[in-house]
Amino acid sequence: MAGEWILTVTAQTPTNIAVIKYWGKRDESLILPVNDSISVTLDPEHLCTTTTVAVSPSFEQDRMWLNGEEISLSGGRFQSCLREIRARATDVENKEKGIKISKKDWEKLHLHIASFNNFPTAAGLASSAAGLACLVFALGKLMNVKEDHSQLSAIARQGSGSACRSLYGGFVKWIMGKEENGSDSLAVQLADEKHWDELVIIIAVVSSRQKETSSTSGMRESVETSLLLQHRAKEVVPKRILKMEEAIQNRDFASFAGLTCADSNQFHAVCLDTCPPIFYMNDTSHRIISCVEKWNRSEEAPQIAYTFDAGPNAVLIARNRKAASLLLQRLLYYFPPSADTNMNSYVLGDKSILKDAGIQGIDDVEALPPPPEIKDKIAAQKNRGEVSYFICTRPGRGPVVLSDESQALIDPKTGLPK
Amino acid sequence: MAGEWILTVTAQTPTNIAVIKYWGKRDESLILPVNDSISVTLDPEHLCTTTTVAVSPSFEQDRMWLNGEEISLSGGRFQSCLREIRARATDVENKEKGIKISKKDWEKLHLHIASFNNFPTAAGLASSAAGLACLVFALGKLMNVKEDHSQLSAIARQGSGSACRSLYGGFVKWIMGKEENGSDSLAVQLADEKHWDELVIIIAVVSSRQKETSSTSGMRESVETSLLLQHRAKEVVPKRILKMEEAIQNRDFASFAGLTCADSNQFHAVCLDTCPPIFYMNDTSHRIISCVEKWNRSEEAPQIAYTFDAGPNAVLIARNRKAASLLLQRLLYYFPPSADTNMNSYVLGDKSILKDAGIQGIDDVEALPPPPEIKDKIAAQKNRGEVSYFICTRPGRGPVVLSDESQALIDPKTGLPK
Repeated sequence: MAGEWILTVTAQTPTNIAVIKYWGKRDESLILPVNDSISVTLDPEHLCTTTTVAVSPSFEQDRMWLNGEEISLSGGRFQSCLREIRARATDVENKEKGIKISKKDWEKLHLHIASFNNFPTAAGLASSAAGLACLVFALGKLMNVKEDHSQLSAIARQGSGSACRSLYGGFVKWIMGKEENGSDSLAVQLADEKHWDELVIIIAVVSSRQKETSSTSGMRESVETSLLLQHRAKEVVPKRILKMEEAIQNRDFASFAGLTCADSNQFHAVCLDTCPPIFYMNDTSHRIISCVEKWNRSEEAPQIAYTFDAGPNAVLIARNRKAASLLLQRLLYYFPPSADTNMNSYVLGDKSILKDAGIQGIDDVEALPPPPEIKDKIAAQKNRGEVSYFICTRPGRGPVVLSDESQALIDPKTGLPK
Repeated sequence: MAGEWILTVTAQTPTNIAVIKYWGKRDESLILPVNDSISVTLDPEHLCTTTTVAVSPSFEQDRMWLNGEEISLSGGRFQSCLREIRARATDVENKEKGIKISKKDWEKLHLHIASFNNFPTAAGLASSAAGLACLVFALGKLMNVKEDHSQLSAIARQGSGSACRSLYGGFVKWIMGKEENGSDSLAVQLADEKHWDELVIIIAVVSSRQKETSSTSGMRESVETSLLLQHRAKEVVPKRILKMEEAIQNRDFASFAGLTCADSNQFHAVCLDTCPPIFYMNDTSHRIISCVEKWNRSEEAPQIAYTFDAGPNAVLIARNRKAASLLLQRLLYYFPPSADTNMNSYVLGDKSILKDAGIQGIDDVEALPPPPEIKDKIAAQKNRGEVSYFICTRPGRGPVVLSDESQALIDPKTGLPK
């Protein structure tokens, strides 16, 4: 360790959406949950965080930039992750660059971290989950940490609970664990993304002027005041976890959808049972649920599962591409874009679903007939402008290292964001 | 019993609003609930049903008119009430009119019934509770039924569950009972309306274009699918009932408000936990809750309790007149009337509250400053047109007979609605 070298690692980590929800901590500082949860990892092509971590003897302090803006690293959650990862650092040697860092050097070396979300950060799309997971994963690679993904997930968990589920692709379970120190509260992969590759996911980003309760304070208030939360955690969720694992194993969409919808609704029920009550869903969310429920009930088997996190956005999981294109038609019928929005910025992500739905431009949206399951005029009403945009995606892979230096977010010469 | 005489009785019965909610039956046909409930009776001056029941040997069949329109009496619930009341009929003698009806005559005699609500029937203001209670009460008087109000309440219960609570004024408990035949599932008065006469009630009738789930089918679906309902009924409500009785006895508004709000929210949480989920509250309901919660938390003690039944309307109970006028200012600030609405049809009922609030016309509404507890612009936004109108009222008396014949709804000569 000498000279003015800079060593970097760049990684990409997905977001995830819980289908059996995490709501309530039994330990605030270690972030230990009151129940297991299960999530689907979303394709990083459409929703992911990219993070470059850099180390150099010339850095005078730890610094971090998010989407180009410098942010503070002083928060307890960042510090927990940095401390835990540093404690597991091992010897690093880069012969090409002539760099040698010994295990004990890591305590003195400072880090520069640059992170970027390929989706709006504040839109309630689990940016903190992907972000903390990516930070831990990238630092693990940089510092040659030998722990496996599950062990890294227990570190990411201390940054943001649901971040632990972003350490794997496909279908992931966060085991609540029993230990007081949280060492067994970690994520495991139930199945990879290829196991059930028919699924298509459409996210409706809902316009909202409400200021939302943060999930951290919301779940604290639920634990303190809801008389239903403990019953849910102890009596309801354990059975659902077993059934959900089975549904995923068997690619049983009817069970998967039934459990996903019921658990999303129950999580929001617990929020409503909190004092003061927490409302994350709004009238638009309710209308999306009503659209899906009516369609599912008009078919022999459910076509769509819906789930909502701590905000009004809907995450809709279609059983296959055909169902996804029929869903997109329904969504565009009920929620046409505002006059000043073009289709290209209204449906993002995998645009082939839009093509399957036979929609090329705004005229095709205006020409959509009411869904056949709708019998009355009130139910057929349109709600222009209530959705900001849609994102079409699918279950996706876990974290990866991006070895192409052009994808790094930090300039390897200056050590600052590009 | 002879000749073409017509005998009538006219009665007036209040509506009631539950502060510990009834949601879920353990017996569908007898209407037996899964838990006790407690309600406040609303002043019949502002919200009541008036019913005239008439009997005559000239009537060829049982007939009923609601708000001037003839309606069918064939429903099982009407029939249950008619059957139960007829079974308890006794000898009636009206010397003035020279009428004698013996106990056994009642089986052959037909009835004409005319009923009128002094408030919009379909606005979700418990019109069926007042209506069924009034029918049973008026028939009981006509047929000289000897049963007391509690025993009558068990008959009204078979028409519409919450109707049983409209047989008393003030504060009323519906005891769920244990008997299979429902004989002990009836209402008792906890305290009359004079016991706590400081309370003022403001109802916000919320505009809605949604078609709502009827409470009958909604609670059936909750019983069948909600995994939280039984826990609520068995573990949560019994404790709340005891605390609520105590709060009412002690006129302890802080406890009363805390229990009322929490129980309303928990009832809606159970609705949300139903499959498919039931949404009775909408964004306007949420905004009203948020307004009350913010204000309550900014004061040393709660000023207002809120509760919502199976619809978006808010029932707001103010601790006293002062709090009610401050509440009305807030409500009018957030929910000013549409441009084409005048104040006189926007605030109904006890208009002295409006006067206390210093509001004489629309100009006074437009001049209202944001509530002092509001710190940010988003929270201070106005929502014009979201409320159809307000009704100012108070806890009120139970059913009464109206002896003034001019108030009868049936012409004593023709036997038909006036």
